[in-house]
Amino acid sequence: MSGCLFCRIVAGDIPAAVVLENDTVVAFLDIGPLADGHILVVPRKHFDLLVDVPPETCSAVASVVPVLGRALLDVTQADGFNLLVNNGRAAGQEVMHVHWHLIPRSSGDGLGYRWNAGSYPPGKADELKDRYLASLGSPKD
Amino acid sequence: MSGCLFCRIVAGDIPAAVVLENDTVVAFLDIGPLADGHILVVPRKHFDLLVDVPPETCSAVASVVPVLGRALLDVTQADGFNLLVNNGRAAGQEVMHVHWHLIPRSSGDGLGYRWNAGSYPPGKADELKDRYLASLGSPKD
Repeated sequence: MSGCLFCRIVAGDIPAAVVLENDTVVAFLDIGPLADGHILVVPRKHFDLLVDVPPETCSAVASVVPVLGRALLDVTQADGFNLLVNNGRAAGQEVMHVHWHLIPRSSGDGLGYRWNAGSYPPGKADELKDRYLASLGSPKD
Repeated sequence: MSGCLFCRIVAGDIPAAVVLENDTVVAFLDIGPLADGHILVVPRKHFDLLVDVPPETCSAVASVVPVLGRALLDVTQADGFNLLVNNGRAAGQEVMHVHWHLIPRSSGDGLGYRWNAGSYPPGKADELKDRYLASLGSPKD
């Protein structure tokens, strides 16, 4: 994907502050950080969306997240962090090369998700469960 | 962890609308959904935080995310979704058994991350990169 910003970073055509890389993934500092030390993790191979990523690639990305998270807490001295993937523009995805955000968080930083939990009326959760099971084919993986 | 809500769901001691399970993970509807069809994915084994999860368990959880995401889009007809893990109370974690949120999103739904991107002054990104490399031991995994 010659026009893809993250493909160009992976290829080394655009400089980035790379903090970890292996055969499958590259992790680098977001140049528009929500907090100092905000990291992006991308698969080397281009996929537009998280739902497009094969399970083995998703696993390879995920396997580096705990070690990156520990490094983030060490480097930034943050109190915590959010792991966030936006799947699709409606979810906030801006670069159409799937990427995992690791966002340092501190108490009272004003960041985070706009949380507005609701509840299901009677029967609604069971109805949704049945529709998930039908979509997935089986409750077993 | 007998007092852990999600351990009790995994053990079947508390009912939940389970939509997918395998040897390592259980996925079920969040009873306080941010949007209809909001799913939680947890490892069967208890870990407080994402940074505590061994790479292989993290990979096992991640491998079911794309299939769950496709089912979510199918079932809810949402325009997208967010994958979110809150590591620590400062990041919004409420139940101290690590869990991955899949949150359906629609354009203009008012949900999502409070996004407030900044930028690094000259030299700051390089300084952070060096600190990450020192913390991680090597840029190679």
